[in-house]
Amino acid sequence: MKTITLLTDFGLKDPYVGVMKGVMLSINPDARIVDITHEVEPQDVTEGCFLIKESYPFFSKGSIHLCIIDPTVGSDRRAIVLEHDGHLFVGPDNGLFSLTVDKRSRAYQIENKRYMLKEVSDTFHGRNIFAPVAAHLSLGLDPAVLGRKVDDPVLLPGLHPSTKGHTLTGKVVRFDRFGNVLSNISIESFNRFVKGRPFQIRLHDMRFETLYRSYFEDPYTCVVGSSGNLEFGLFGGNLAQDKSIKKGDAVTVTPLRR
Amino acid sequence: MKTITLLTDFGLKDPYVGVMKGVMLSINPDARIVDITHEVEPQDVTEGCFLIKESYPFFSKGSIHLCIIDPTVGSDRRAIVLEHDGHLFVGPDNGLFSLTVDKRSRAYQIENKRYMLKEVSDTFHGRNIFAPVAAHLSLGLDPAVLGRKVDDPVLLPGLHPSTKGHTLTGKVVRFDRFGNVLSNISIESFNRFVKGRPFQIRLHDMRFETLYRSYFEDPYTCVVGSSGNLEFGLFGGNLAQDKSIKKGDAVTVTPLRR
Amino acid sequence: MKTITLLTDFGLKDPYVGVMKGVMLSINPDARIVDITHEVEPQDVTEGCFLIKESYPFFSKGSIHLCIIDPTVGSDRRAIVLEHDGHLFVGPDNGLFSLTVDKRSRAYQIENKRYMLKEVSDTFHGRNIFAPVAAHLSLGLDPAVLGRKVDDPVLLPGLHPSTKGHTLTGKVVRFDRFGNVLSNISIESFNRFVKGRPFQIRLHDMRFETLYRSYFEDPYTCVVGSSGNLEFGLFGGNLAQDKSIKKGDAVTVTPLRR
Repeated sequence: MKTITLLTDFGLKDPYVGVMKGVMLSINPDARIVDITHEVEPQDVTEGCFLIKESYPFFSKGSIHLCIIDPTVGSDRRAIVLEHDGHLFVGPDNGLFSLTVDKRSRAYQIENKRYMLKEVSDTFHGRNIFAPVAAHLSLGLDPAVLGRKVDDPVLLPGLHPSTKGHTLTGKVVRFDRFGNVLSNISIESFNRFVKGRPFQIRLHDMRFETLYRSYFEDPYTCVVGSSGNLEFGLFGGNLAQDKSIKKGDAVTVTPLRR
Repeated sequence: MKTITLLTDFGLKDPYVGVMKGVMLSINPDARIVDITHEVEPQDVTEGCFLIKESYPFFSKGSIHLCIIDPTVGSDRRAIVLEHDGHLFVGPDNGLFSLTVDKRSRAYQIENKRYMLKEVSDTFHGRNIFAPVAAHLSLGLDPAVLGRKVDDPVLLPGLHPSTKGHTLTGKVVRFDRFGNVLSNISIESFNRFVKGRPFQIRLHDMRFETLYRSYFEDPYTCVVGSSGNLEFGLFGGNLAQDKSIKKGDAVTVTPLRR
Repeated sequence: MKTITLLTDFGLKDPYVGVMKGVMLSINPDARIVDITHEVEPQDVTEGCFLIKESYPFFSKGSIHLCIIDPTVGSDRRAIVLEHDGHLFVGPDNGLFSLTVDKRSRAYQIENKRYMLKEVSDTFHGRNIFAPVAAHLSLGLDPAVLGRKVDDPVLLPGLHPSTKGHTLTGKVVRFDRFGNVLSNISIESFNRFVKGRPFQIRLHDMRFETLYRSYFEDPYTCVVGSSGNLEFGLFGGNLAQDKSIKKGDAVTVTPLRR
């Protein structure tokens, strides 16, 4: 029984997610379908990148991840299937898989109409193209049958932190329900830069010279969160609101001379 | 393994949906339960009609659709099971199935207490009546065992567009998460009226003389959406908010003399 | 096929719930996972108590209930598994199970690291500890293997109504999606106190001298709701907003002399 996960910005008020499940179960009645989230901020492809990276490794190899944040549905952007790290990803080729692609990944364009529903409009590729393709993949379809190989999947710029002089500069990429603030600085990037030296992390007027293990330890904290990245929290409160933090705000790390 | 879909206005903050699933799985542990939506606007039976029609055809024949928008739960409105188009629908007889009933449909009143939970109140028929009945149907129960035949299921007025002189007049029936505006004018009604002539579609101060294939093609668009009906969108924005559109606002189609 | 239910305050916008499902399905691919709700008000352990009590009895004996409202995750609060009424409950020992524990319950601390994921931080015990433990329990793991017996699970004060003189005093404990107001006065407590005498129930400026069977019968009603407790509603409206009712507001019952 193959698992198909869903990650979209479709929300849950519309029937769109349920309809995609109906399409998939009509093709593979034994598919096990798991929602990751449908509340990605509408059309925020960057947020989607980080959510995919944060969630897929907790599913078994061989899982199929249907990911749709697709502001230009109906344009000539390609639809792709990506093989990466033993998982399959299905969705629009608009940069959504920027953090789940590397030199060993293989990608194919979805062109073979045999595995699509007949389309009445170009507004819902999730139902007409992506869902049926994911269901066929869960039945063992070889991705290479879907279309030509893609050697240049779209990659979004600016997703990784950068080093300039004595500063590692990242940014805020998302907020969670509790108002915790997630950055794009992974613990690996952080360690590579800091090399065990004393450090100072800055976000707005906050300064941290230590990493906490949990949000419980102080009112304002900086932890290596469950995402594996630097996260910031306010115990018993909503940090994003408290400090009016916006996506894209700078998070910096500098070595400290003591 | 039978599929039971759920479409309600119960929302997801309360335990009501989970409890109904517990009831169904206690009766049929092999039922496959799929949520369509639980975010129908509270007590908006009309919105429910359109959502049911838009979603059920994507599930396999034989599926059971548990649909509950039930403002007068506890009154003497009937509870029914409806056979239509190879699918079974379970819910209150308050007009919710107005768009999924025709001359070939068969309906039965749910009266047989053997297939209900013992009721402690009349506030939650979803748990006490509809969920257990759906679960028993998924085990193969003949709907005729549930109660007497219903020849006059409640039908809501005003769901279909009407023609008067040279104008086809429909209305706005729902908004999706992206702020797209869905009308009750199906492409079939539209084509029957327009008969290939030049046309003008109006909604508030917008005028369209062509149908687009996707929301991507212009800032303001009118497409045949995934619902099969005329839908209106604002690319990169929320049309419903941008134009202060309300449910019930008129959508008209007139032939154009050129 | 064992059922694992989920009840958390994690919300649905983050990938946290999906990730826990991935962890569980990696351990037990045959687990059947059912969401009760993820929209418990953030960090409201009391609300969680009532939701657990209201929902678990509708699942089969032997079900496993993963319940996480955990404001002090990462502190030295214990993690526990509780056997109660033929069900297993997994979560933090912070009072969340106050209404689902009695003298016959048995509890064990979760200490055995063999059944946890390797932790990178202390911010997400749901993923690292509770989900894998629930999955192993669904495979038949004996809870006693997890750690030492717990004889004193944390109990929250003030959850039950109290009698003083001629008044039974309870309080508002949650609101549902429709704005109905749920109290902590069960029909059993009510009956024990009232003993068939005439009575008056008060909440804000509302007075009721009868229990209704449904919200349909009057504009303002007091019913024994699906929770089994006294609930208050406004037909066609949102009572919580209409009367500015807050959690903790007093609900009183007094006998009436006629």
